[in-house]
Amino acid sequence: MTLHTAEKVVIITEKIISKGVCKIIESCGATGYTIVAAGGKGSRNIRSTTERASVVDDFANIKIEIIVNNYEMAEAIMDSVKKTYFKNYSGITYLEDIKILRPEKF
Amino acid sequence: MTLHTAEKVVIITEKIISKGVCKIIESCGATGYTIVAAGGKGSRNIRSTTERASVVDDFANIKIEIIVNNYEMAEAIMDSVKKTYFKNYSGITYLEDIKILRPEKF
Amino acid sequence: MTLHTAEKVVIITEKIISKGVCKIIESCGATGYTIVAAGGKGSRNIRSTTERASVVDDFANIKIEIIVNNYEMAEAIMDSVKKTYFKNYSGITYLEDIKILRPEKF
Repeated sequence: MTLHTAEKVVIITEKIISKGVCKIIESCGATGYTIVAAGGKGSRNIRSTTERASVVDDFANIKIEIIVNNYEMAEAIMDSVKKTYFKNYSGITYLEDIKILRPEKF
Repeated sequence: MTLHTAEKVVIITEKIISKGVCKIIESCGATGYTIVAAGGKGSRNIRSTTERASVVDDFANIKIEIIVNNYEMAEAIMDSVKKTYFKNYSGITYLEDIKILRPEKF
Repeated sequence: MTLHTAEKVVIITEKIISKGVCKIIESCGATGYTIVAAGGKGSRNIRSTTERASVVDDFANIKIEIIVNNYEMAEAIMDSVKKTYFKNYSGITYLEDIKILRPEKF
């Protein structure tokens, strides 16, 4: 089994801008992404859940993961999402190093 | 683009204790966290789904992620959650190294 | 607090094969796993959501995470899932290094 080093970009932001975020991801050249419904609490509390009591049942956020095999594409996605949305919407984006089995897909 | 090293604490445990876990996270000084509904199977099977067949549709667990920029806070969260809940509830907690774009938020 | 290095295997694939994937995971000796409902877009588009517009609300995929404390088990799970399913179903699998608080559970 041969594993290849790759980067996983993670974006956690508000569900209402998910289409725009996916558009950015695709325009940067990524061929796929995974989306999970998420709740939570952020440091800015802009348009986010205000009471901890309702956090678990109110999934107004999304967590998007994109696996890319070059750092430049990861950087382009993160930078574009930040500049386009993070001034007006809650969001964070980070990178993780992974080892992937099917690099031929990226 | 400047990325900063940070720690991601992950806690996977039972949904019924989510409020208490979130309280611990906040009392340790974290400013935000992300919650995702999860199913699964654990090694202890305490109050968890007993049949594999129902695993996917029965999301009685939660996966909580907290991004912190110092190891001490990560340690405090993990240690407090373990001591408070993991004797009586199913749960695991682990750390991942990440590189984050917006460190000013933590 | 003592943290131990471990491997997290991640499998993202179609929900309809979740039982078979869980069977493989258990047959490889893993004692637990976590499942999250996921949507998304893949590079092959086999049996996956075709329109970006419906991505967020249509969670036809699953993301399974398995924490193991030896690389051989991680390799066996990834290899078996790939050989059994990835020719006919969409899917990716990757590894992440983690540091875990409760190694006695694996």
